[in-house]
Amino acid sequence: MKYVDFVDSTYKPKDSDLICTFTFEPNDVTLKEAAGAIAAESSIGTWTALTTEKPYVLKLAAHVFRLEGNVAKIAYPKELFEEGNMPNILSSVAGNVFGLKALRSLRLLDIEFSGDLIKGFRGPKYGIEGIRKILKIKDRPLVGTIIKPKLGLNSEDHAKVAFDAWSGGCDIVKDDENLSSQKFNDFEDRLHETLDARDRAQSVTGEKKVYMINITAESEIMLDRADLVVDHGGEYVMVDILTCGWSALQTLRKQDYKLVIHAHRAGHAAFTKNPLHGIAMRPIVEVARAIGVDQLHVGTVVGKMSETKPEVLENIDACKTEMHGLKQVMPVASGGIHPRLVPALLETFGKDVVIQAGGGIHGHPDGTKTGALAMRHAVDAALKGISLEEYAKTHPELRGALDTWKA
Amino acid sequence: MKYVDFVDSTYKPKDSDLICTFTFEPNDVTLKEAAGAIAAESSIGTWTALTTEKPYVLKLAAHVFRLEGNVAKIAYPKELFEEGNMPNILSSVAGNVFGLKALRSLRLLDIEFSGDLIKGFRGPKYGIEGIRKILKIKDRPLVGTIIKPKLGLNSEDHAKVAFDAWSGGCDIVKDDENLSSQKFNDFEDRLHETLDARDRAQSVTGEKKVYMINITAESEIMLDRADLVVDHGGEYVMVDILTCGWSALQTLRKQDYKLVIHAHRAGHAAFTKNPLHGIAMRPIVEVARAIGVDQLHVGTVVGKMSETKPEVLENIDACKTEMHGLKQVMPVASGGIHPRLVPALLETFGKDVVIQAGGGIHGHPDGTKTGALAMRHAVDAALKGISLEEYAKTHPELRGALDTWKA
Repeated sequence: MKYVDFVDSTYKPKDSDLICTFTFEPNDVTLKEAAGAIAAESSIGTWTALTTEKPYVLKLAAHVFRLEGNVAKIAYPKELFEEGNMPNILSSVAGNVFGLKALRSLRLLDIEFSGDLIKGFRGPKYGIEGIRKILKIKDRPLVGTIIKPKLGLNSEDHAKVAFDAWSGGCDIVKDDENLSSQKFNDFEDRLHETLDARDRAQSVTGEKKVYMINITAESEIMLDRADLVVDHGGEYVMVDILTCGWSALQTLRKQDYKLVIHAHRAGHAAFTKNPLHGIAMRPIVEVARAIGVDQLHVGTVVGKMSETKPEVLENIDACKTEMHGLKQVMPVASGGIHPRLVPALLETFGKDVVIQAGGGIHGHPDGTKTGALAMRHAVDAALKGISLEEYAKTHPELRGALDTWKA
Repeated sequence: MKYVDFVDSTYKPKDSDLICTFTFEPNDVTLKEAAGAIAAESSIGTWTALTTEKPYVLKLAAHVFRLEGNVAKIAYPKELFEEGNMPNILSSVAGNVFGLKALRSLRLLDIEFSGDLIKGFRGPKYGIEGIRKILKIKDRPLVGTIIKPKLGLNSEDHAKVAFDAWSGGCDIVKDDENLSSQKFNDFEDRLHETLDARDRAQSVTGEKKVYMINITAESEIMLDRADLVVDHGGEYVMVDILTCGWSALQTLRKQDYKLVIHAHRAGHAAFTKNPLHGIAMRPIVEVARAIGVDQLHVGTVVGKMSETKPEVLENIDACKTEMHGLKQVMPVASGGIHPRLVPALLETFGKDVVIQAGGGIHGHPDGTKTGALAMRHAVDAALKGISLEEYAKTHPELRGALDTWKA
């Protein structure tokens, strides 16, 4: 089969097919040849005719069944893939194709898994509903903080900052994405001390508190760390899903721990940032949801990171839209967040969101506890439809935050 | 500390520091602020002043110690990282920084691991020297083929094509990157049948032959498959290192199997292709070498993939240059290769290369065996400094290949 033979507008995708949407720019070939090259190289084709092709192979061909301008929709027969093997699926649909000379650029916009293919994966164990149950918070955004400075605090100071954040009003305390088990802050010490602080904060406040400790590591060490978290009464783990990789994430989810999986996406913008090339965040959400993360960073619109509102809305949609019965992933907004930005966040996210602020809490001039309280005030005000300026008149902690961060 | 405080041209990197080189374009900030933002966000800094900063944390700051135009060299104290935890290192130096609003684009060009940091990793078990010993080939390029069509052949036909390739002259037979254990070609069946074919090919030719079976999967399944390969007398495994991810690759290497690890980089071009943004291939080579792959795809210059000669030369250099005593990684050239391209390949690679041709062998009009022989002729001719046209006068198999692929 030649590249162009993989384009067939008469092909009707089957319910069991996996569908990918790509946008691309051809390089010295026609749009049709370029689209065919994507379908060929990601299924059974190659650049030259083969003497080893067998008639029975052809039923596995992917088809470009829609080509509108430079957007191609490609259907892949489910038999192309190994059941439950995400790296295998991605090596086809998000593999060599990005490097083809025939394409000046290529961007994967969406992966629609069929019900048959989803069966091979576990999906979120808890999802939005399960998380709300654990935290006993029915209808407001969850408020989290990342301990700052992001690296360097010893485990004792780390736990102290965590206690302050929880006692001020944070529901969640999270490690930074690059904290794991460094000499300055050993994983097990930090786990003990921070869970102790959690217990004390729960006593003091009467609220449920959770700690998302970062277990990112080589797979076996990561499982050892998850075991420790279970043993010590933790309910959450955090994983840097992209620097760890899909195999390890599947391994973690496969153990079916009674642990909520918080997924950080450090590194995504290396391939998501250029709108013409790479992989959009939406397919990453779809892949992570299929494997089974419960919470996922999806951007902020406001803050220090660069995604646009349409992109973030796409990501939120992928977290929550119907997906063969999988639970919904809780979207997380993180990166340069402070109380003034909360109304805009709620406008984008609605109530189902973890609002995570690091600097925007620990940078409050009166310290972490006051910073956490200010953040809760901002959430309360936004939910009540009261302007932050108005609310700050009776809530000096919020006033302090608004005076610190003016935009 | 403010972003600009992370720029310090008087800082002298220590031997133990990890050094990264980035190129970037600022977004509405100065070059210095942008460079400082990279160092800050990838070490201990954030976007706002903190009340939780402790004096003892400051010694962990990364420093931009050289800023020339839009190229920054940043030194990271080794204490920032967990020993032997590659995802942890990458979550810092190749993590959130790509998504910062302060940067229009950011590209990681190089990671120089210090000797102290390399100690946490295993490096290649075999490397070029070990591979040459196994294959008993001292001073010529290795000739490999990828079984084609890339997906769809059943295990019996797969093994038949493998036998033909080996008996024609291939040293190596490799699975395609998206073949794992699909229903049409079960992993264990394929392993048995193809290793049987290997044994027969060794008897017939008197040459050593190896089979690189693709074990890409969730980590535990990947280890099970590696065990099977060992049990059945295989000497090689193949892994799609980017779709699997670094945690799983570390897990595999940690077992210290008597297996050569062949690393495929499916998906790399999603972040390597744009010269202004993402991660260059060189740091990927450095990371994979530190963890311990033995062979790695590094581009072709010629063929169907898009990397330029300077890029491929960079990659080869990273495979082979001195790196704290680690063994050298064998570079692999793969993607649209056929006999006519061999002299150009040798000019780029020298003799230390696996020349892998799929379509360029199985597309030979007289079939796989003849195609393999033609490829060996091309290598012999190039090594002898005889033009292919000249050599083809007495080698009709090569003539057939040259007549099939004219450029």
